Amino acid sequence: MVDISLHSMKEVRVVVSGEQRSIVTDLLDRIEATGYTVIAITAGKGHGGVQESHFMFGGVESLEMIMTVVPEEKVEPILAGLRTLFSHHSGVMFVSDVAVSRREYFGKAL
Amino acid sequence: MVDISLHSMKEVRVVVSGEQRSIVTDLLDRIEATGYTVIAITAGKGHGGVQESHFMFGGVESLEMIMTVVPEEKVEPILAGLRTLFSHHSGVMFVSDVAVSRREYFGKAL
Amino acid sequence: MVDISLHSMKEVRVVVSGEQRSIVTDLLDRIEATGYTVIAITAGKGHGGVQESHFMFGGVESLEMIMTVVPEEKVEPILAGLRTLFSHHSGVMFVSDVAVSRREYFGKAL
Repeated sequence: MVDISLHSMKEVRVVVSGEQRSIVTDLLDRIEATGYTVIAITAGKGHGGVQESHFMFGGVESLEMIMTVVPEEKVEPILAGLRTLFSHHSGVMFVSDVAVSRREYFGKAL
Repeated sequence: MVDISLHSMKEVRVVVSGEQRSIVTDLLDRIEATGYTVIAITAGKGHGGVQESHFMFGGVESLEMIMTVVPEEKVEPILAGLRTLFSHHSGVMFVSDVAVSRREYFGKAL
Repeated sequence: MVDISLHSMKEVRVVVSGEQRSIVTDLLDRIEATGYTVIAITAGKGHGGVQESHFMFGGVESLEMIMTVVPEEKVEPILAGLRTLFSHHSGVMFVSDVAVSRREYFGKAL
């Protein structure tokens, strides 16, 4: 019998250029996140503070959203770890509340 | 005039192999979810409990995220319904709070 | 040093046909959302209220999810702005709580 009760966690989503994906996933490995999911982004637009600089992504440049779910105490280490990346490259991080089924921790590999 | 006030619901996201999509969507049909959205996943990594088994998805194997929004009382039936699937196949389920516009219930088909 | 503390915001996701994307993004520009992200949707199903009309999307018709993160006071203007779109075309809007790193506001263009 699989335990599928729900547990409160934090969902962290990081949007970066596809070229920076491994920097993010290496960080997630280091803080021992249990896994991650990468979603391709079709288009995006961002404004750079007072400069109002715009960026738009076509089919050529790739943007990705990397999602992970971690216990709350791992959010700060992720923020800290992204500091270097975000000082050199564009990116955004979102944190939200989420409940996960415990099943995740006993996952059978596909 | 369309009513677009917001109502509290639960968002359920299930990540499974593309081959298992219909098992999930059939379940959503049975519990009478009003609809679902399927997003392709570019890459993913998961750890299998104490075995720490890794799985990585390339372009060939397909992973999908199936999203739906349901009233809170339908979350448990979904969890129960996924039990069989998750005992045989890898997968993760996330539940989070979301507000939806009532518009959804009076949607005109595309 | 980049400030990466977290701030409470509202995440708004709008699912529409790809043909209606610019209507949504023009609206987001008008209310001065700082940016948005567009994700392609592989498949979707919705029920139209009492008519129970179904719609299913294959590879030909495109559905997209447009995500943005805004301060709470901008949610109502988005709802109001979508009223005309939703009176003519199918679509759903989700609103949820999210925390963002302030980094977003000082983003360097990719």
